[in-house]
Amino acid sequence: MPTPAAAPPEQATPRKGSARGEQTRQLILETALRLFRERGYAETTMRVIAKEAGVAVGNAYYYFDSKEHLIQGFYDRNQAAHRAAAEAVLSAEHDFAARLRGVLHAGIDVNEPYHSFAATFFKTAAEPTSPLSPFSRESSPAREAAIAIFRDVVEGSSVKLDPELRRELPELLWLAWMGVVLFWVYDRSPGSRRTRQLIDGAVPLIDRLVALSRLRVLRPALRQILALIETIR
Amino acid sequence: MPTPAAAPPEQATPRKGSARGEQTRQLILETALRLFRERGYAETTMRVIAKEAGVAVGNAYYYFDSKEHLIQGFYDRNQAAHRAAAEAVLSAEHDFAARLRGVLHAGIDVNEPYHSFAATFFKTAAEPTSPLSPFSRESSPAREAAIAIFRDVVEGSSVKLDPELRRELPELLWLAWMGVVLFWVYDRSPGSRRTRQLIDGAVPLIDRLVALSRLRVLRPALRQILALIETIR
Repeated sequence: MPTPAAAPPEQATPRKGSARGEQTRQLILETALRLFRERGYAETTMRVIAKEAGVAVGNAYYYFDSKEHLIQGFYDRNQAAHRAAAEAVLSAEHDFAARLRGVLHAGIDVNEPYHSFAATFFKTAAEPTSPLSPFSRESSPAREAAIAIFRDVVEGSSVKLDPELRRELPELLWLAWMGVVLFWVYDRSPGSRRTRQLIDGAVPLIDRLVALSRLRVLRPALRQILALIETIR
Repeated sequence: MPTPAAAPPEQATPRKGSARGEQTRQLILETALRLFRERGYAETTMRVIAKEAGVAVGNAYYYFDSKEHLIQGFYDRNQAAHRAAAEAVLSAEHDFAARLRGVLHAGIDVNEPYHSFAATFFKTAAEPTSPLSPFSRESSPAREAAIAIFRDVVEGSSVKLDPELRRELPELLWLAWMGVVLFWVYDRSPGSRRTRQLIDGAVPLIDRLVALSRLRVLRPALRQILALIETIR
């Protein structure tokens, strides 16, 4: 097995958090994502990633403890990109439906380059015990960041809400977003046209249901929904 | 490679559909399911299944063209078992909620012995392009049989419904059932306690929402839901 050309990490690895460190980290992450797309997740080893990125294997492990950590890095990066892409609509719009529609479309925009990867990768993330599942403990920072976007959708809007629903709605919207992502993973239409249609159809419906939630006749159903969520959490 | 001990299928294989044929088919299916549980789906070959079942490889292929066909056989069998387990409640009860609750719990009852297999197998079935996905063309006979159970839940009940919702409700209930199954796959609580709680909480909620669907104020929301389902179908 050839010895890596670069010096051992103790001597030559730029520190985490420094500008050069961040650059190296990004290089490793981008290289990994390209290889995952080209060769598949299971087939791509840390050794191959390091070689393709032109860094020592020890260097790659200095930034990412494992392939799973690379995927968590990918989640974090996508999360930040989603937030940035949603910024325009969140700072300009106060209408709940417009904010939600903007955030959902922005999410598809930033994920679209990874569509083919998402389809092959899905079976890894979907495994119940996988640390890469969006519901896992390990994914909780990325999940919390994603829920925060939907909290912003609600809090920055003029929508009138039952107070208890207001507390739960960000997480419910995030769950709906996970449903959209699942639909998108399966979507083979050109430019994910069907996913765009799903968003455009679901947003007015969610908007209407949220408005209806204040009706007295629907109160018991709303209480039941919130209690059910509490039970299975 | 050793020659299989049994005579070639042309001479010795009991005909499909005959009593002995059905027995052999069941033997191969049960052996396969045991091996999938013990060794994993990916690791179990048709050759090993045939050997363990004590039949010739050609014999195994006579009944099942591939491992995928074994899983479709498993789906069909589970489907029939679900129908049989639901029969008592479907023939005795006319209350919609009681019928639905009975059918959902019966579904978990018949699947429970395969819980650990379901968790490991899930990543195969969850792959969007897999013929083993519950949404695939290949799974359509098992899917139609499953939807038929929920049609029976609706049609045999005394529930009053908007006519358009009546047409769509069996498929919507099947989708909800797929959601319950997904939750169950992830459920690690003893005896799938949390899945049972989910069913007990969701049934009265669905029952209430179905009743509310006849309210004039909810008509537009109902139309929107049905139109959205039509769009993405």
